[in-house]
Amino acid sequence: MKHDQTIHSHHFGWDNSLPPALRAGPGEILEFAILDASGGQLSAKSSLADVAALDFSRVNPVTGPVYLEGAEPGDAVVVELLEFEESGWGWTAIIPGFGLLASDFPNPALHISRYTPQSVEFMPGIHLPTRPFPGTIGLAPGAPGHHSVVPPREVGGNLDIRDLTTGAKLYLPVQVAGALFSVGDTHAAQGDGEVCGTAVETPMRLRLRLGLWKGANLRYPQFDLPSSPTAHIDSQGYYATTGIGPDLFRAAQDAVRSMIDYLGREYRLKPEDAYMLASVAVDLRISEVVDAPNWVVSAYLPKGIFY
Amino acid sequence: MKHDQTIHSHHFGWDNSLPPALRAGPGEILEFAILDASGGQLSAKSSLADVAALDFSRVNPVTGPVYLEGAEPGDAVVVELLEFEESGWGWTAIIPGFGLLASDFPNPALHISRYTPQSVEFMPGIHLPTRPFPGTIGLAPGAPGHHSVVPPREVGGNLDIRDLTTGAKLYLPVQVAGALFSVGDTHAAQGDGEVCGTAVETPMRLRLRLGLWKGANLRYPQFDLPSSPTAHIDSQGYYATTGIGPDLFRAAQDAVRSMIDYLGREYRLKPEDAYMLASVAVDLRISEVVDAPNWVVSAYLPKGIFY
Repeated sequence: MKHDQTIHSHHFGWDNSLPPALRAGPGEILEFAILDASGGQLSAKSSLADVAALDFSRVNPVTGPVYLEGAEPGDAVVVELLEFEESGWGWTAIIPGFGLLASDFPNPALHISRYTPQSVEFMPGIHLPTRPFPGTIGLAPGAPGHHSVVPPREVGGNLDIRDLTTGAKLYLPVQVAGALFSVGDTHAAQGDGEVCGTAVETPMRLRLRLGLWKGANLRYPQFDLPSSPTAHIDSQGYYATTGIGPDLFRAAQDAVRSMIDYLGREYRLKPEDAYMLASVAVDLRISEVVDAPNWVVSAYLPKGIFY
Repeated sequence: MKHDQTIHSHHFGWDNSLPPALRAGPGEILEFAILDASGGQLSAKSSLADVAALDFSRVNPVTGPVYLEGAEPGDAVVVELLEFEESGWGWTAIIPGFGLLASDFPNPALHISRYTPQSVEFMPGIHLPTRPFPGTIGLAPGAPGHHSVVPPREVGGNLDIRDLTTGAKLYLPVQVAGALFSVGDTHAAQGDGEVCGTAVETPMRLRLRLGLWKGANLRYPQFDLPSSPTAHIDSQGYYATTGIGPDLFRAAQDAVRSMIDYLGREYRLKPEDAYMLASVAVDLRISEVVDAPNWVVSAYLPKGIFY
């Protein structure tokens, strides 16, 4: 049942009329050759001018689609993430108009990292554990026509759930016959929130197994993690900032603004670098969402990345 | 410099005209006798009728205030959380009109737990590691008059940040001379979000040290954690549900609704019990808040609590 072939075909956006690149049965292991989120427009030698010149009609390609035999609306596709082959380089950028603090950062920025299977050297003195995952993983929506790849939906897509790494299982609600699974946008590291809008964006090969859960009737994706999502990064504890107010989005913005101030004061990072570091390493948690009218969002910085 | 006395005086709400219960200098260790969030209206023998009869003018008392010598607006009070003496019982309730899913749960519910310093027996077959912290910890606001204790503010208050346990340091922005520190609302266990509006609510004694950071100029509270916030609970991994949409609050609601469904299907918990369990054990994380217009909130259930 094992496919030896690697899927190379890419598409931009979601559309349930796209012809399948492959038909597979439940239990098959598939390999995907995944482009970085720029679709190859950026490379390890890129400069700021290349960010400014990005053609947005070519960003965030996904590899697929795979027609899963037997999948019908109401089922869930079970994705077991098995193995990543990292390319060794990645990019992180501030893209004008995009990101949690788009209004604070009107200018583009670009940062290139090298990484090994163990560690991303994000900046001198800042190392993140490498933790590969696909930012975009999902199925074709039931609604006809072309759908932007940017927002995630009930069928998944650009979820940017950074814990979908080796060993995780993801359950995706099926809306069309055959499910039409695609995956892309691989990341070498990311914090919960992906606050500047990009992670350590990198091409990878990914092997995974597709299964079928008949009649699951999930409303949104769900996932199962075999172990701690943070043990790789939390041995030295955290420094955390908060944002407080009646709107979780603004509270998240305020928490990240205070984190950027903190990274400037304690580690002498420029605001642009601090914002990009927060995107790849800082986790946003909802500390409370019940003490009306003010909620608390906390931004957690793992202290063990500074060495 | 060590005070041998224990502070017993309580107040309801925040008001910078309240006379201090004690004056202390930076570095002093203080002990607080903290009432549970019902202010003693509920006990280990309480029933549902007691929840319905709660007098809300007497909920969430805080112990204090302490006048910290030398503290002025623009400084931060540094709170080192040193030691908790647990009382051994706690309550968790659904209070009509309160909580993330107030519209889904119109009726009151009450659950009493027994706990040791190591473990909360939340329900038969469900054990949470005991992890004590004060849900409410803060300073008097600069604005005159009485302020409800329910919402947290720039000066802290009802933050419900569950990682403020032994070893954590909290930095609170000062708005009045002497800071006027108070603490209350102790919890034996809570998930990030505190989704039903209550945790394992329990009276405790708490020892802490107050310090002073001159000219800190923080906008909101910040905190420092010496170690992993989840190592005590994440050895068996997690099951996670998601909510996806343009509003983080609604996405959090949807993630918790799916978690309640999951707990019913997998563990045969009634919806009320599942909601209360989510409040004391499930963590809300913002997976992404940049893929416009849809954000992802994930609810993480630690699988190691079922034994």
